[in-house]
Amino acid sequence: MPPEPVVLYVCTTCRAEGDGAEIRAGARLMTALAARLGAAPVPGLRIEPVKCLSVCKRPCTVAVASAGRWTYVYGDLDAESSAATILDGIGLYAGTPDGIVPWRARPEAFRKGVVARIPAFPPRAAPDLPEAAE
Amino acid sequence: MPPEPVVLYVCTTCRAEGDGAEIRAGARLMTALAARLGAAPVPGLRIEPVKCLSVCKRPCTVAVASAGRWTYVYGDLDAESSAATILDGIGLYAGTPDGIVPWRARPEAFRKGVVARIPAFPPRAAPDLPEAAE
Repeated sequence: MPPEPVVLYVCTTCRAEGDGAEIRAGARLMTALAARLGAAPVPGLRIEPVKCLSVCKRPCTVAVASAGRWTYVYGDLDAESSAATILDGIGLYAGTPDGIVPWRARPEAFRKGVVARIPAFPPRAAPDLPEAAE
Repeated sequence: MPPEPVVLYVCTTCRAEGDGAEIRAGARLMTALAARLGAAPVPGLRIEPVKCLSVCKRPCTVAVASAGRWTYVYGDLDAESSAATILDGIGLYAGTPDGIVPWRARPEAFRKGVVARIPAFPPRAAPDLPEAAE
């Protein structure tokens, strides 16, 4: 069975703090992610640019969603240096049945940068999870 | 056609700052929302408790999702006083085709408390929206 498709949303309108560059940090991150994914594909992963994920205070921002898996939103990501880390983290996510990567296995940028998580929609059976470290 | 179902996720593990109450703020908000919804039903709306939406720094927290609509996450909500406001805002959301309520029409608590928004998943056609005030 092919892996369940995963969508990585990248906010292309994020501006880095003090960023006066003509191309916004979010757009630069999008370019970096696309280049990296081209060089090292993650099976089933598609990257989609989004105009504003409403996390404007914590640029750069991405979100990841997949049928039957929790959606996660991450911020505080560096436009220039985080593409590899993000794709590593998404690769771990893609390897789980529910989107929940064990806390210690997550990239530090995901542990520190988590903005929110939302249950799979439409809902399947809701597991009774420990609250911490999710 | 009946309205597209809407799910309001309520983080029941949120603790208010300095909150020493035995029943956590998130659980109290859940109770208040359920009571309010019982008294004034919103067609198609279901409330679902969730153990942690990972917005621990901005309690209380809710998220709203619906097929074909953007998902929104809101924080900084008061456990005791915000149930009516939240349900008013969700009612407006439920009345839109895509989940995007015009900025000025949103309750102030939603404008100030927005944590993130995520495109409808699985994706339909992605409208090219203005970035601000979404």
